Amino acid sequence: MISKNILSIETSSSICGVSIIKNGNLLGISEKNTYRQHNENLANFAQDALKQSNKSLSDIDAIAVSIGPGSFTGLRIGLGFAKGMAYALGLPIIPVPTLLSLAFSLREYEPRNGIIHSHSKKVFYQEFSWKNSIPKIISKAVVGDIGQYSKNIQDGFQWNCEEIMSSYSNIKKAVPSTEFIGILASIFYDDWVIKTPYELVPDYIAPFEMTPRE
Amino acid sequence: MISKNILSIETSSSICGVSIIKNGNLLGISEKNTYRQHNENLANFAQDALKQSNKSLSDIDAIAVSIGPGSFTGLRIGLGFAKGMAYALGLPIIPVPTLLSLAFSLREYEPRNGIIHSHSKKVFYQEFSWKNSIPKIISKAVVGDIGQYSKNIQDGFQWNCEEIMSSYSNIKKAVPSTEFIGILASIFYDDWVIKTPYELVPDYIAPFEMTPRE
Repeated sequence: MISKNILSIETSSSICGVSIIKNGNLLGISEKNTYRQHNENLANFAQDALKQSNKSLSDIDAIAVSIGPGSFTGLRIGLGFAKGMAYALGLPIIPVPTLLSLAFSLREYEPRNGIIHSHSKKVFYQEFSWKNSIPKIISKAVVGDIGQYSKNIQDGFQWNCEEIMSSYSNIKKAVPSTEFIGILASIFYDDWVIKTPYELVPDYIAPFEMTPRE
Repeated sequence: MISKNILSIETSSSICGVSIIKNGNLLGISEKNTYRQHNENLANFAQDALKQSNKSLSDIDAIAVSIGPGSFTGLRIGLGFAKGMAYALGLPIIPVPTLLSLAFSLREYEPRNGIIHSHSKKVFYQEFSWKNSIPKIISKAVVGDIGQYSKNIQDGFQWNCEEIMSSYSNIKKAVPSTEFIGILASIFYDDWVIKTPYELVPDYIAPFEMTPRE
């Protein structure tokens, strides 16, 4: 656990959030389900979270960011903003795996795997182990049809998959939050920190598919 | 013309560039056709451009950004980075219309209209007037089939439309550059500057079309 002021950003889905975390504790948070408005909201949310924390930007030591997998657009906006700040202030970035943060949000249940909706019937899937209520990644996140994971996922979690699930009623619902991103960044700071994060890219997982609107 | 140090960002297409402009003069520039690598390159390019200019970040007074229309992805990355910097340093942003900057790049010919490729046969189209070698927008940018504009565009310019053009051989080719973005930001600073640019969004023009990979 690192004693630094971390500004944490979560934009990997429709939820947009910014929080300030120190020693694994939440000092301030601004978070909302703001479908497609991340670009408008990030700076204002950062301002709110700092104010609640009685901190100013000059107190911030590092920026944590939800690195994916998740929404391409959301990840790009969040990381773009994080890099602009990191570059301007000379701060390091701590990229936090999105599925790991969802596992951590359910740490009382210690789920061993989880899925996030990607598109149509596709989901991102990842497995975890647990020690002292902290999850660790034991396999790279993969993308595939939800049917492939229906057996494994019975004791796991899902986010945004309700519409493509049928009988997976035992699966816990996980909800992304900048809080879990920031706390994991506090815990794994030394392992994950990137001092000059200018070439960091989102963890898109799936091969980039060009679309007409790209 | 404003006597401020402007850091100018162009990411509206496959070309990624950062330059430093003062009084409408180019002090330093780093620019490259880096298909899908804007997220990796922006901070390093900014660093290069500052170094060439013998400036440091603390000398910068404002950030100019190519605001669109253009590539959704490119615009999001560029504006995200610009907003992160602007927020971190308390700087204003000057959003510069992309098609106007292309017209300005061909100011010796004073083109009265121009097109940028959008997708399939679709292009973004805009018209301009000229006074003292400076273009002004006389109509909002619109999106439509290239065929709709084939008559008008004969004395205009195009960017990225070669593959969908047949007999438009008189049309000049314009190439986006952070230099033109920065110079226009110098010229129109007072008209365009946004002091607290946190809610600025790209000028997407076309109604947002959800794609599976969004």
